[in-house]
Amino acid sequence: MKEFPLSKAYQLLEPGPVVLLTTSQNGRANVMTMSWHMMLDFEPPKLACVVSEGDYSFAALRATRQCVIAIPTVDLAAKVVKVGNSHGDRIDKFKAFGLTPVPSEKVKPPRIAECYANLECKVIGFQRAWDMFILEVQSAWVDPKRKAPKTIHHKGYGAFVVDGRTIRLKSKMR
Amino acid sequence: MKEFPLSKAYQLLEPGPVVLLTTSQNGRANVMTMSWHMMLDFEPPKLACVVSEGDYSFAALRATRQCVIAIPTVDLAAKVVKVGNSHGDRIDKFKAFGLTPVPSEKVKPPRIAECYANLECKVIGFQRAWDMFILEVQSAWVDPKRKAPKTIHHKGYGAFVVDGRTIRLKSKMR
Repeated sequence: MKEFPLSKAYQLLEPGPVVLLTTSQNGRANVMTMSWHMMLDFEPPKLACVVSEGDYSFAALRATRQCVIAIPTVDLAAKVVKVGNSHGDRIDKFKAFGLTPVPSEKVKPPRIAECYANLECKVIGFQRAWDMFILEVQSAWVDPKRKAPKTIHHKGYGAFVVDGRTIRLKSKMR
Repeated sequence: MKEFPLSKAYQLLEPGPVVLLTTSQNGRANVMTMSWHMMLDFEPPKLACVVSEGDYSFAALRATRQCVIAIPTVDLAAKVVKVGNSHGDRIDKFKAFGLTPVPSEKVKPPRIAECYANLECKVIGFQRAWDMFILEVQSAWVDPKRKAPKTIHHKGYGAFVVDGRTIRLKSKMR
């Protein structure tokens, strides 16, 4: 994993990929699947995401105020679904699904070795009305060996659209 | 355009496509390009989005509390960029870029005929700290003639990833 400029971190999330979110509490790490996230600011990169009170990760995120957002590629799609369909209070999802936790630099929750990008985040806000967490990215890491990573985007009930081709148009928009 | 079930509206936005947002104030409609949005709730469908105070649409959205989120497909990518690169106070973007405003049913801002899906929305909340609007979808419309619409996802500076293939996995996740 190579450090990735914080000024470009939004480019990893703005396309709207399904992500994995890791937390760590009482020495135990957990991971959940998440699709409801959006950027809020470029630099330092801030984002919002929804983690429901019904999710096992909710309590850890509220208490520790730290997480890692790991971005999986299409080869991990089956594991992403298994993570989303299981409960962290019953199993160790990393072991159960063959995901490798890697120590983070700035937060306690681990990165995921199999994911092509990992964003170490701290919670800087919370909106109870929507179970919405506001996160600030502390450091970003990308696997330099992955040249054209294809992420997945959830369309509901296990249907995912996979990244296709990239087009480039002249734009003044960041 | 055919009415689309509100219970499925999240499936249009959860994949994270670039969207167009229309507003209407003092009898004049405007449209902007937007990538920072996320779902908040399934039914009735609620979402959050960021419209900066610097955007010309900001004032209309604050004052009228209504908008339409129109979802363009890849064939509209060049127009989407032109909309994003221009200012609604200087030109009529619909005329300038050949987009056709169509009257909405439940809100004043128009749908866009060329977009494969249109969501008529009301503003139900606002967070000044992030210029974040909370929207509730009032009605959703989809063009039934478009069988496999390919949306675009912004990667920054005019680079867009286009929808590729769809994969289906067994999932308990909605």
